[in-house]
Amino acid sequence: MADQPRFAPRGSTQDIEEGLALAPKFDADGLVTCVASDAGSGEVLMVAHMNAEALARTIASGEAWYFSRSRRSLWRKGETSGHIQRVVEMRLDCDQDAVWIKVEQVGGGACHTGRRSCFYRAVPLGSGGEMKLEFRDSEKAFDPQAVYGDKPRHGG
Amino acid sequence: MADQPRFAPRGSTQDIEEGLALAPKFDADGLVTCVASDAGSGEVLMVAHMNAEALARTIASGEAWYFSRSRRSLWRKGETSGHIQRVVEMRLDCDQDAVWIKVEQVGGGACHTGRRSCFYRAVPLGSGGEMKLEFRDSEKAFDPQAVYGDKPRHGG
Repeated sequence: MADQPRFAPRGSTQDIEEGLALAPKFDADGLVTCVASDAGSGEVLMVAHMNAEALARTIASGEAWYFSRSRRSLWRKGETSGHIQRVVEMRLDCDQDAVWIKVEQVGGGACHTGRRSCFYRAVPLGSGGEMKLEFRDSEKAFDPQAVYGDKPRHGG
Repeated sequence: MADQPRFAPRGSTQDIEEGLALAPKFDADGLVTCVASDAGSGEVLMVAHMNAEALARTIASGEAWYFSRSRRSLWRKGETSGHIQRVVEMRLDCDQDAVWIKVEQVGGGACHTGRRSCFYRAVPLGSGGEMKLEFRDSEKAFDPQAVYGDKPRHGG
């Protein structure tokens, strides 16, 4: 895409932390981490990754694109399910290796299991030894079998 | 620590996504991603990483421990600054490779630059070509020079 944002070279720590140039720090696999939260409730919906193209497309389009590590492919969120994410705001962290997007989640759920959020289990704190997770906010927002059928589902 | 939680082996996709065993998926570097948000406002404060020991210590103590990728060392949040994070709730995502903690941030700020959140710059959406970040919620919550002096600061 000719109109994609261009990324700046990494500069000094001062440039990176206090500057206004977008100079993402992609890891050895060419990825930054992205946290998507619900723009209304603030709930964290999912954590995924973006390569340079996914980041550029998200900025240019205002809809979330990711890079699937398991499939090694660019992935438009909602391409199978229709459950796209409209990005209300994008933030970048101090060292520019993580992105936070506040989104409007279409279709009620971000998780391929049918839940609103991927974070539908709590880890009890203060526990030692063997421990059990607890379901929390785990009700289904949609029926994944009806939405995906046998089509590929992106997890994590 | 003898009372640290034990992690379960990774099982089937069904076990991992719908089960109650804590079976984290550590990456090739032995890390899971951790998102820390403010338990009150929902604001994302920082994104960092945990190795098995950091995760176990966080669960056992109810205070956030991380693993610094740049320093290759276990890192108790606030060990230098005193700005610890009390974990109110911990969640785990569907494929168990990301953790979300809701925290009470002691000292007013999570970021080593002195801001409340590491995400103090916004990326304008819909922009092509050269682009400029915009400071947002970027006022200092503390003076990093006064807090850290010449001591090591953990970034991202």
